[in-house]
Amino acid sequence: MSDSIRVIFEPDGKSIFVMRGSSIVEAAGEAGIILTMPCGGGGTCGKCKVEMSKGAPEPCDADREHLSVEEISQGWRLACQATLQDEAIIRVPAEIRYFEKKSLTQQAYRETALHPNISKLYLQMAEPSLDDQRADADRLLEAASSSDNGMAWAELDIIRQLPNHLREDEFAVTAVLEGSEIVAVERGDTVDLNYGVAFDIGTTTVVGMLIDLNTGEERAASCRTNPQVMYGDDVVARISYTQENEGGLVNLQNRMVGCINEIIEELCRTAGVEETHIYEATVVGNTTMNHLLLGIDPQYIARAPYTAVLRSGIDTKAARLGIQINANGNLHTMPNIAGFVGGDTVGVVLATNMMAGEKPTLAIDIGTNGELVIGTKERMLTCSTAAGPALEGARIRHGMRAAEGAIDKIKFNEDVEINVIGDVSPKGICGTALLDAVAELLRVGIVDMTGRIVAPGDLPDTLSEQLRQRVVEGAQGYDFLVVGGSETENGQAILLTQRDIREVQLAKGAISAGTEILMKELGVTIDDIDAVLLAGAFGNFIRRSSALRIGLLPSVPKERIRFVGNAAGAGARMVLATRECREEAHRISRFVEYVELAGRSDFQQEFSTAMLFM
Amino acid sequence: MSDSIRVIFEPDGKSIFVMRGSSIVEAAGEAGIILTMPCGGGGTCGKCKVEMSKGAPEPCDADREHLSVEEISQGWRLACQATLQDEAIIRVPAEIRYFEKKSLTQQAYRETALHPNISKLYLQMAEPSLDDQRADADRLLEAASSSDNGMAWAELDIIRQLPNHLREDEFAVTAVLEGSEIVAVERGDTVDLNYGVAFDIGTTTVVGMLIDLNTGEERAASCRTNPQVMYGDDVVARISYTQENEGGLVNLQNRMVGCINEIIEELCRTAGVEETHIYEATVVGNTTMNHLLLGIDPQYIARAPYTAVLRSGIDTKAARLGIQINANGNLHTMPNIAGFVGGDTVGVVLATNMMAGEKPTLAIDIGTNGELVIGTKERMLTCSTAAGPALEGARIRHGMRAAEGAIDKIKFNEDVEINVIGDVSPKGICGTALLDAVAELLRVGIVDMTGRIVAPGDLPDTLSEQLRQRVVEGAQGYDFLVVGGSETENGQAILLTQRDIREVQLAKGAISAGTEILMKELGVTIDDIDAVLLAGAFGNFIRRSSALRIGLLPSVPKERIRFVGNAAGAGARMVLATRECREEAHRISRFVEYVELAGRSDFQQEFSTAMLFM
Repeated sequence: MSDSIRVIFEPDGKSIFVMRGSSIVEAAGEAGIILTMPCGGGGTCGKCKVEMSKGAPEPCDADREHLSVEEISQGWRLACQATLQDEAIIRVPAEIRYFEKKSLTQQAYRETALHPNISKLYLQMAEPSLDDQRADADRLLEAASSSDNGMAWAELDIIRQLPNHLREDEFAVTAVLEGSEIVAVERGDTVDLNYGVAFDIGTTTVVGMLIDLNTGEERAASCRTNPQVMYGDDVVARISYTQENEGGLVNLQNRMVGCINEIIEELCRTAGVEETHIYEATVVGNTTMNHLLLGIDPQYIARAPYTAVLRSGIDTKAARLGIQINANGNLHTMPNIAGFVGGDTVGVVLATNMMAGEKPTLAIDIGTNGELVIGTKERMLTCSTAAGPALEGARIRHGMRAAEGAIDKIKFNEDVEINVIGDVSPKGICGTALLDAVAELLRVGIVDMTGRIVAPGDLPDTLSEQLRQRVVEGAQGYDFLVVGGSETENGQAILLTQRDIREVQLAKGAISAGTEILMKELGVTIDDIDAVLLAGAFGNFIRRSSALRIGLLPSVPKERIRFVGNAAGAGARMVLATRECREEAHRISRFVEYVELAGRSDFQQEFSTAMLFM
Repeated sequence: MSDSIRVIFEPDGKSIFVMRGSSIVEAAGEAGIILTMPCGGGGTCGKCKVEMSKGAPEPCDADREHLSVEEISQGWRLACQATLQDEAIIRVPAEIRYFEKKSLTQQAYRETALHPNISKLYLQMAEPSLDDQRADADRLLEAASSSDNGMAWAELDIIRQLPNHLREDEFAVTAVLEGSEIVAVERGDTVDLNYGVAFDIGTTTVVGMLIDLNTGEERAASCRTNPQVMYGDDVVARISYTQENEGGLVNLQNRMVGCINEIIEELCRTAGVEETHIYEATVVGNTTMNHLLLGIDPQYIARAPYTAVLRSGIDTKAARLGIQINANGNLHTMPNIAGFVGGDTVGVVLATNMMAGEKPTLAIDIGTNGELVIGTKERMLTCSTAAGPALEGARIRHGMRAAEGAIDKIKFNEDVEINVIGDVSPKGICGTALLDAVAELLRVGIVDMTGRIVAPGDLPDTLSEQLRQRVVEGAQGYDFLVVGGSETENGQAILLTQRDIREVQLAKGAISAGTEILMKELGVTIDDIDAVLLAGAFGNFIRRSSALRIGLLPSVPKERIRFVGNAAGAGARMVLATRECREEAHRISRFVEYVELAGRSDFQQEFSTAMLFM
């Protein structure tokens, strides 16, 4: 028996060899297919179903719990549980794949002057003579010094190259400066080839932008699913993975670096740029993403009292982490604020210029986690809430991401009207439609203030017959039938269950209670809030009316709610293009006060109140 | 035929295996026996004679030129020319070995306050709580910050260690700071274990000192022959070696690092200190030694217009060069002044506090090269002369280093009186005795002002018969018989030849002309010179009266001549113990003006005049 077995993934037709005993999730990852695992691979959610037409192992307890006897006999298994023992053919349904969706790179943020940390100078120096015996390094460093960068300097590695480099073309070279440090010496005049990359590393999605540092222009943008998602959907699941698996931290770090390198390669290909002409990479991400990328043990973030290892931004050689830009290029990470409020939030504050505000602004960044920031230039507070997973489709019976086949809009007239992503039959509900549905159910009276689905007998008289018939008996109380089995891809009805409504309540309650606590701490009321900024991929798709109706957003006039898109990514781009923004980011990371909700009794009270749909 | 052959070195009895075809010099180096090669291994001086009782190869042309037929038949060969083809037994005479002589580490120099770049702090921090959620790094860095060092910071490698290190002993650790950077975190209170090493890398000798950075005390000192000497006696020969041999630069660098590591090991053993508690190494050396240690191509130092690659001091991780101190320890090199005036001269100026002088001081550092510095706090000039080799016994027929068997003192009364190092028969003449001999020959009139050995018929009448009979016919004019063959170890007479006198004239002329040029440039005369400082190993042994008589030193009253011993090494120790001295060294390296003698017609004039013994 060989130790390596062949696995074919369908419908991709990708064939790879893996070690016998590998999990399906791992094998899929190797094949470049990233699976969603809402419960983090614990076998508890039953979502990661794959169909094995060959090589299906004996079903395990989790399979038996989550799959029907018929499904098991057809070869369905939970990808997170099954290990591969023999040659296998595995079909991975689209709904459990992460969809490489187009992400947002940039919207209109504050303008900052172009002043990157990297500059290039073509230097034509006097050749040495008995009247000018300056050392090679002095000759170069004096020529490269300027009022802007100050006295130039270089590390030993660069100095070693000088005797040859300077004499190749009669003491004419291009010097690449990172601040006042010469980090590369290039032959000829290469001043025009000066690039940087800015990354926004989300828990779910990684966005990269290639920036021309001479013009500030975006030359290419690309995004990928964070390959770490197969080890857990949220940061806590990722941290658990690093704790429970030998080499887990290194594995997650390597996955991230691999993803970054793939994006860089794609950006370079798109723009016709060489990786060696990228001299700096900037990164924003939440504190856990930051720690995982840097190879810093994140375990204490997830344990009381929830401390990070690193708050500050870091500058280090990108090559030391394996990031493939210029061999001597710099990696700059955005500083964090606390264990659960990271550099992405600093990026939002930076890009939106909140810290300049005279009147209180509230920013809500709904990604996989939900971070809130409120304040003015006088004082600014932040907190983190575990709001995201439900809104991204996790823990929702028929929830899914905004991928092909997802219902992304729901409206009630006489009956339910839906919109589906792509020209296909519906497969599930994504977060925006979930909010729509709950908003509509509340409006028509199918769900009451407490979040309960009203029993058919107690439904309002005004309700249409079509909608009334959609309230059906469920496992816990009643469910609401969104799409009947005859209209779906797999023949199963798409339901919104009582439990699903509770999940939305929890998310809404968390964000709403967090907002209340921050307002209370700052000493302001909802009427004082000048603007509500919705950041993050999800924030950008949300419908304000639905969010307002269910109370996810504080009840401000709709026109005060502004979408700011991927403000975190914009922050990464700003620190790349404008070095002064790094100092500002540093100030933000120290200025914004973190409010720990976990330790507060008033949060529990606010939370239970905020759970109500009032 | 195996590719590896056994070679035994006698009388050491050291047996090693080397590749067939290795040179004897290389093989001896492998066995830890360093041979002197005055001509740099070119086979032109005929000095590196070894006796092979087994395995002697066919004699080559150089052997036939320098060795007698009898010697060749006895198995004598030139070590620099012979390659090993078969198992061999080789006797290496003492006079061609570098003698591991006790070197000078320290004399009384200016006092500087103890303020090393390295400090250690035992920190007992508050443990994290919901009221104090500071990140691990912030917690440590805030605790380690001080008014002296400023805000502490750390690189990623250190930050990665923090979550474990801080929790091992309830947030009590010892932080090691290099300036404001935390370079190590140690368990428990290790504040007392704080060491540094200072190195003086001479062309011929390497001196190392282990310093307790908490007290400034020297805990151990050691010196070794620079293992690079087997590739050439002076810096130009070493540079040639790097140019003419593939991998030559790397080889010389590795030899030096190996030597440094051996010294460190010995220092640690002597003092009972662990290498991991040495956090910094400082190094002084001439510009070529500096470049070779740092792996910087030195070729342009030796070619007009004689430029160095690096003038500044460098700080780099010692581990990157393979120097075995703490894994994160720093290597600090003293800045250079020019291609032929290096950090050793900066060390001399620093240690002697010349730059504070109101009246002109002249410092002469006679090592393998001779560097001169003259000036006051207003202006200071330096130049380099190729003075050393003759004074160290090279290029002198029976010259040798100050090793066992060397005549180190000569005085004429009725006849010649000599002193020999060690209780052995004389083998040759070392530099100090050479100066004595020339001084005495001048005094009694055997050598005239032009440096000519007077023909027997023209000798002064006052001369004793014994001395008169020592003037014998030689290859070029006359020679002077110092010791007859019956009294020497090998039965050969020790002569001072007409050529030898010319070599002394060249050395004397170079130093003297250099001094004249510097005085002229500075606009002072010999009467203005307040003190003449003699630095370097050789300077320390010289007899002032002899040096004055032959005109090696300018004619100042004898009491103005002061020996300052290994002032360069003292400089290395000062920058280790007192960080402010680094800035001063930097200022010195930029303040002292280099005067290039090669480009000056007046130097040639001065030189031809200075050749005269006036």
